[in-house]
Amino acid sequence: MIIRDPDMVTEAALAAVARASDQRHAEIMSALVRHLHAFLRDVRLTDAELETAFDFANRIGQATTDSHNEAALFSDVLGASTLVCLLNNGMTGPTETGAALLGPFWRLNAPEMENGASLLRSPTPGTPLDVSGQVRDARGAPIEGVRVDVWHASPVGLYESQDPEQADMNLRGVFKTDADGRFQFHTVRPLGYPVPTDGPTGEVLRAQRRQPNRPAHLHFLLYREGFRTLITQVFPDDDPHLAEDPVFGVTPALIGDFVVSGRGTPDERCALMCNFTLEAGTARLPTPPIK
Amino acid sequence: MIIRDPDMVTEAALAAVARASDQRHAEIMSALVRHLHAFLRDVRLTDAELETAFDFANRIGQATTDSHNEAALFSDVLGASTLVCLLNNGMTGPTETGAALLGPFWRLNAPEMENGASLLRSPTPGTPLDVSGQVRDARGAPIEGVRVDVWHASPVGLYESQDPEQADMNLRGVFKTDADGRFQFHTVRPLGYPVPTDGPTGEVLRAQRRQPNRPAHLHFLLYREGFRTLITQVFPDDDPHLAEDPVFGVTPALIGDFVVSGRGTPDERCALMCNFTLEAGTARLPTPPIK
Repeated sequence: MIIRDPDMVTEAALAAVARASDQRHAEIMSALVRHLHAFLRDVRLTDAELETAFDFANRIGQATTDSHNEAALFSDVLGASTLVCLLNNGMTGPTETGAALLGPFWRLNAPEMENGASLLRSPTPGTPLDVSGQVRDARGAPIEGVRVDVWHASPVGLYESQDPEQADMNLRGVFKTDADGRFQFHTVRPLGYPVPTDGPTGEVLRAQRRQPNRPAHLHFLLYREGFRTLITQVFPDDDPHLAEDPVFGVTPALIGDFVVSGRGTPDERCALMCNFTLEAGTARLPTPPIK
Repeated sequence: MIIRDPDMVTEAALAAVARASDQRHAEIMSALVRHLHAFLRDVRLTDAELETAFDFANRIGQATTDSHNEAALFSDVLGASTLVCLLNNGMTGPTETGAALLGPFWRLNAPEMENGASLLRSPTPGTPLDVSGQVRDARGAPIEGVRVDVWHASPVGLYESQDPEQADMNLRGVFKTDADGRFQFHTVRPLGYPVPTDGPTGEVLRAQRRQPNRPAHLHFLLYREGFRTLITQVFPDDDPHLAEDPVFGVTPALIGDFVVSGRGTPDERCALMCNFTLEAGTARLPTPPIK
């Protein structure tokens, strides 16, 4: 159509995206046009600001590599990723632990291990941590044979894929629940770490005077056919950054009870009990963020 | 803050972006968070759709080169670029012609030429086109010394920067208005051309069954200190794609009166009169889209 006023641009763009044969595509793109145009009317970008926005958007993809997803990171620090996660997975209901973001460090094919084994594959100094837990269904019955995929950062805040000093697959492993739905493993307490700040997202965090450190956490991915896959994170209750997570990922259900014994002594150890509930549904593995 | 429900993610993200020291940054980013979260609540992306969105966003920047800006193109086909242009420049008022998008093909430092000269720097078969016009201020007084920067595609729909068969700066030139505010030049009628469809934006156009061809047009950039720079396009009134421009750029004021003589004969020629009005203001050259 010939555009006679600014409202007609929105009308014409909505008519254009609605030509899609795929109904879901049309639905998503119509909402994108509506909300994007409303944003532009609200903020009244100057021509120079629009050029800056194009440059910023282009640098997102240009900062993305086989092992780093800058679009996901930018979405994370805007709260968009956590919002989608919570809308899709709920915050209450039968799941005791709740869902959390997959994050950028999950690897497919971590080694399968016996219950009770250690995740340490190379020397990793740190406070010993014993983790155990039980996986149950919505009615409280234990589920046998759930794959409990665990990964976490080291006591200096680095995943093995970022750290040449750690052996391949250090602090990663897959356990299987026993007839009682139980699993257990040994590891060391992880440290929190900053999100990557060397790309355009880092510029935004600095402009907003936000601290980039995530609280420490253990990642879990629980998988068994017949159940909705649960992706989650568990945070120590004594972490200093719990209330200022740059990706807004800390919910009450995700704060674990880390029981410390011998605190401050050379014999300091820590124990964590994590119980998870799986809902009936379709199992689905996410796309591994590291290629 | 600890997130107790999905609304708190929005609240926490708004509090985070509001920490910015720059007031305009805080204003833009707050609006982005509000509209982005509202979009996500509306469409309820699945986890898999969110992954697809990240991949799409990353491929925008990866398709961008020194001579192609995919973020700008995606903004164009969503109507966002034209909306910003119209909001910033108005659609009525003293400007007879109105503003339009700069587009991706403007080059800094096109050659300065005498009035009446030809834009053809290498053989360019096509219908001869004589363009003349006058530039006036808001009160109707002619403005002398306005730089009238002109560029357009060839009769096969290619800019010289895309076409090895055209000489450097073919169909580009800068004229200066005389004491009567007048300028004139000779060229050939341009043809419309498709927007680039080999990147992610092309996938969207195909999914939406939209035709990619812009109507033919001449680009103008009018610059003189003391006046707001006018960037605009003029379309032939007989172009078949006027009502289906993929970037929503055709307004009534931008349709030029192309007077054709000897139509269909070997002597066919075309004449176009373009009058422009400049508003008092600050002159500003845009960032050249081609590096």
